[in-house]
Amino acid sequence: MKNVKAYAAHAAEKDLEPFTIDRREPGPEDVEIEILFCGICHSDIHTARNEWGGTTYPCVPGHEIVGKVTRVGEKVKNFKEGDTVGVGCFVDSCGHCKSCEEDQEQYCLNGFTATYNSPSRVEKEVTTYGGYSTHIVVKEDFVLSISDRLPLNAVAPLLCAGITTYSPLRYWNVKKGDKVAVVGLGGLGHMAVKLAASMGAEVSMLSRSPEKAKDAEKLGAHNFELTTNQENLERMAGSFDLIINTVSAQHDYNMYLNLLKVNGVMVLLGVPPEPSEVQAGQLIMKRRSLVGSLVGGIKETQEMLDYCAKHGIVSDVEMINIDQINEAYERTLNSDVRYRFVIDMKSLKNGKIQ
Amino acid sequence: MKNVKAYAAHAAEKDLEPFTIDRREPGPEDVEIEILFCGICHSDIHTARNEWGGTTYPCVPGHEIVGKVTRVGEKVKNFKEGDTVGVGCFVDSCGHCKSCEEDQEQYCLNGFTATYNSPSRVEKEVTTYGGYSTHIVVKEDFVLSISDRLPLNAVAPLLCAGITTYSPLRYWNVKKGDKVAVVGLGGLGHMAVKLAASMGAEVSMLSRSPEKAKDAEKLGAHNFELTTNQENLERMAGSFDLIINTVSAQHDYNMYLNLLKVNGVMVLLGVPPEPSEVQAGQLIMKRRSLVGSLVGGIKETQEMLDYCAKHGIVSDVEMINIDQINEAYERTLNSDVRYRFVIDMKSLKNGKIQ
Repeated sequence: MKNVKAYAAHAAEKDLEPFTIDRREPGPEDVEIEILFCGICHSDIHTARNEWGGTTYPCVPGHEIVGKVTRVGEKVKNFKEGDTVGVGCFVDSCGHCKSCEEDQEQYCLNGFTATYNSPSRVEKEVTTYGGYSTHIVVKEDFVLSISDRLPLNAVAPLLCAGITTYSPLRYWNVKKGDKVAVVGLGGLGHMAVKLAASMGAEVSMLSRSPEKAKDAEKLGAHNFELTTNQENLERMAGSFDLIINTVSAQHDYNMYLNLLKVNGVMVLLGVPPEPSEVQAGQLIMKRRSLVGSLVGGIKETQEMLDYCAKHGIVSDVEMINIDQINEAYERTLNSDVRYRFVIDMKSLKNGKIQ
Repeated sequence: MKNVKAYAAHAAEKDLEPFTIDRREPGPEDVEIEILFCGICHSDIHTARNEWGGTTYPCVPGHEIVGKVTRVGEKVKNFKEGDTVGVGCFVDSCGHCKSCEEDQEQYCLNGFTATYNSPSRVEKEVTTYGGYSTHIVVKEDFVLSISDRLPLNAVAPLLCAGITTYSPLRYWNVKKGDKVAVVGLGGLGHMAVKLAASMGAEVSMLSRSPEKAKDAEKLGAHNFELTTNQENLERMAGSFDLIINTVSAQHDYNMYLNLLKVNGVMVLLGVPPEPSEVQAGQLIMKRRSLVGSLVGGIKETQEMLDYCAKHGIVSDVEMINIDQINEAYERTLNSDVRYRFVIDMKSLKNGKIQ
């Protein structure tokens, strides 16, 4: 497809603006998708602004994609025109390393191909473009099947925020009665609360902002605890099986580690700008673990989508048109969104090219 | 028993010197032990010198104890006079918390009673005295059974250094073919090498000192890698399933985390004086774990002792008489021991009270 409408950043310090891109003609194993909705992830902003380095411009972000299949290649088995599908954080991987063989493409030893800003494995000298566009072409193996039972706009953030929180809850085996704390109530945190509660855990939202208490409860948290209160911290010492820490601002890990039970685990999902200090004694004295987790593999993402369809779980979203993207970026940075912006891609499809 | 010979520190800055202590008459569940050998653990020095704070003087250290049973209380079932037994890092715990119920007394939620420098649970207003003495009285449940098949002096360090390394190797499930790295070749490190190799792992000794290569090989390490060489570090990136990190000096965790495979685990056994910096990305990008581990429970310590008897594993020791203790402390601090000092307690029993 030529002249596909998109929105792109052309430099770190510039606003995103309308842009047209080419998408490859679907190969035998490709699925062509008309994008209906795309969530806005904090990573989009980091990449558009080159805050992690390595951004190739123009950059079309977006990796929380839901759409309809418009064409499929001749060898495609599992999808046909009209199917509702999703695309998450990566669109390819080496396929033969230990991680890929174990359905953990997110840890591909040769590097997965990110949905945007990654060298394509299919097209030479092409950098991938993400979901801020009307169409995308993706290898079948990296396309997810999406139930029509849920509102599709609110499903879009499951493709990143959903799987990023679901995967560690499964990997560290959260089960009924476990005490799970969630730190940070944003795109990731609100999904962590919903998912952990759905698995039967007793969920505590840990926060510095008393005004978040009501929302935490609505999302399914059983407890809301202010971490600015020293008495609360002392009372909670040694009380959690798992802490899902979604905060990417600099913060004190040891304060949270101290809240873990014997054999407890704190999962980091955010990367603070500087390294964080860890007291070895906090880990040793109660055999605690400080761990990290990155999205999830395709098989697990499908499992998560099916799980969410079954349990009626979606993201809380605020819909925007594509021309509100730059404002939405600023509001995301100010945590002024409950809890994920999602772009209605009709606004791009039907909008004028400016 | 009155006037039991011992060696004690009377203040942080003073040498240890001869001292006499009282041991309680064995109660119904107590075992009285004549101590034959006691290893010198780095913790002894920290405590004698009040480097962790909280030392009660006079302080009689020592928690790597092997001896013979001399008397037993009327309710003691598993030991009789003449049995060879051991005592490790703790001599009591609450007995009813979740950790105790799960045979993990080392993580007793009410605090275990350390073999020395701990308030006794049995005797009011008594602080426990450790193994630098001719006798000790310990509740049966905290006494270990020791095979006479191994040299008993070299068994003594298993009670701390042995279990401290055995427990994490088991908890994180080291098995045949796993790639295990050991950082730091001292009392803990040399046991980690022996034990990991005995479990079928491919063991790499990571070190800054080329002169340790020969010893590492003798202990059973399959590889010796200098971490001062950047090329070595790059070659080893992402290659280990487990790293046993025994270093208690300040050092760079991230350099070692980068050597772990996807899902790899680095176990901290040493507590550096200051917190250490951790890059969240090192954990997140490969779902790595940074964990800690503290000795082991009584049941697991017995399992370790039986395992070592079966596999012919003991510590490499240098024997000293009790009057060499202060010199041995200095040499331990300078890592000038291969790899554990053990006190021959005959030297205390038969020595003059000075």
